[in-house]
Amino acid sequence: MARSDFRFFHDLRVRYSEIDGQGVVFNAHYLTYFDVAITEYFRGMAFDYSAYAKETGLDFHLVKSLVNYAKPILFDAEIQVGCRTAKIGNSSLTFILEVFEKESETIYSSGEIIWVNTDQSSHKTVRIGDNLRELIDRFEDN
Amino acid sequence: MARSDFRFFHDLRVRYSEIDGQGVVFNAHYLTYFDVAITEYFRGMAFDYSAYAKETGLDFHLVKSLVNYAKPILFDAEIQVGCRTAKIGNSSLTFILEVFEKESETIYSSGEIIWVNTDQSSHKTVRIGDNLRELIDRFEDN
Amino acid sequence: MARSDFRFFHDLRVRYSEIDGQGVVFNAHYLTYFDVAITEYFRGMAFDYSAYAKETGLDFHLVKSLVNYAKPILFDAEIQVGCRTAKIGNSSLTFILEVFEKESETIYSSGEIIWVNTDQSSHKTVRIGDNLRELIDRFEDN
Amino acid sequence: MARSDFRFFHDLRVRYSEIDGQGVVFNAHYLTYFDVAITEYFRGMAFDYSAYAKETGLDFHLVKSLVNYAKPILFDAEIQVGCRTAKIGNSSLTFILEVFEKESETIYSSGEIIWVNTDQSSHKTVRIGDNLRELIDRFEDN
Repeated sequence: MARSDFRFFHDLRVRYSEIDGQGVVFNAHYLTYFDVAITEYFRGMAFDYSAYAKETGLDFHLVKSLVNYAKPILFDAEIQVGCRTAKIGNSSLTFILEVFEKESETIYSSGEIIWVNTDQSSHKTVRIGDNLRELIDRFEDN
Repeated sequence: MARSDFRFFHDLRVRYSEIDGQGVVFNAHYLTYFDVAITEYFRGMAFDYSAYAKETGLDFHLVKSLVNYAKPILFDAEIQVGCRTAKIGNSSLTFILEVFEKESETIYSSGEIIWVNTDQSSHKTVRIGDNLRELIDRFEDN
Repeated sequence: MARSDFRFFHDLRVRYSEIDGQGVVFNAHYLTYFDVAITEYFRGMAFDYSAYAKETGLDFHLVKSLVNYAKPILFDAEIQVGCRTAKIGNSSLTFILEVFEKESETIYSSGEIIWVNTDQSSHKTVRIGDNLRELIDRFEDN
Repeated sequence: MARSDFRFFHDLRVRYSEIDGQGVVFNAHYLTYFDVAITEYFRGMAFDYSAYAKETGLDFHLVKSLVNYAKPILFDAEIQVGCRTAKIGNSSLTFILEVFEKESETIYSSGEIIWVNTDQSSHKTVRIGDNLRELIDRFEDN
């Protein structure tokens, strides 16, 4: 994929605490980058996750993560994490994430995160409401 | 998969620092658990990774991680991470990992990690040597 | 201080994820080691923290941490974290922690953690009950 | 201390991965915030740490950390970490750090970090050079 496939990017700078003994970002921290990017992606479309969880009694659970590590990321690197919703299922959201070098087409990593909409009391999966579907569709200009 | 599919388990207890605001292990820490388990898996077969890297000038790079999150893991939970080599490719190793509740068939998570054998100077992929292939085959009783 | 100053040790092995670009344990992780050691220290004296919090409506808040870094800790090092209660105040507990090389008097780090007993509803500090005082005194053989 | 005691602030937003089971930032992450703030503080005064380490063969080792936790920090909070050099010793630098609520005098945390200038080969402490002393003095307007 290319930068043009994303309408949303979150900028990050690599912290020293995220570097491992090989001098590159430790593999687990990519999932933290993805998590931060999804949080900011929803903020970007003015979706208030906390209010949603409180008002509806619903919450999203992460059920799958996939990361491809294409190129090591060094300390202090300025990166941009592209995020988009690839699929809105009945109860699931599939996000595509891609870590770019700042203002460049160089790809450090690409990945996928799947969330499932869940009732906090019954722990059953629940259909994603029309409000959120429309919000995402409008933001992604689908 | 079941416990009987693994010849190696690494025991861990969930740290409070690994718990997130939902009271369960944060998704990125599963990759840390996998990383620790692979380290111990190689120790279990008496493979000296540090010596290997120094003597051969080779090193493994993680190129892919996949995690399925089946059941949330709570603070203080005693877990067992099963690890086995699913495939020895030309230059790659594919590990299957599975997080079990202690002494139980309950599965918290399953995943896959792929490593690629790389020359530290040229950064090119290199065929995995016969020594390591035999070590793994003997350990896994293939 | 020496090993003989501690009645309790928690054994840990350094994870690769805890190593930074200088090849040594990143400074923040010492606090995670201390946290794990205090959890295990209470388990060692059969104090059920979760039950305590639920039954009494009280909880401890960490209000101070101090770490002295004496000697860098390398990847895969086997360490032992000594923990003892240095002082039981009206509402506070002061823990002394010391990280030793396994079965050695070599000290990697020493530190101090202070907890304050707090009412979860009013958020006010509360006197530590006699049960917990006696439990600690007996365990420490004061 | 107050905001006016600092000439440098680094802005951060709390990540979900940094929240623990009590719904607040886990104590160890404050040291990561401090570490990031010191990195940005030096960038702010145009001190090139990497070049310094390479050219001089010197490096700084963190020898002490102290954190006071005044007020819990919640998920998504926007914070500002104030950083200043409190003392330039013969071979040591003492930093004062303070975590403020964004654009407010509310203090979440205050702390101290001590670094020692060290020769990377001999591992002996070394006097801090005049260049760096002057750079800090000018930046802090001492």
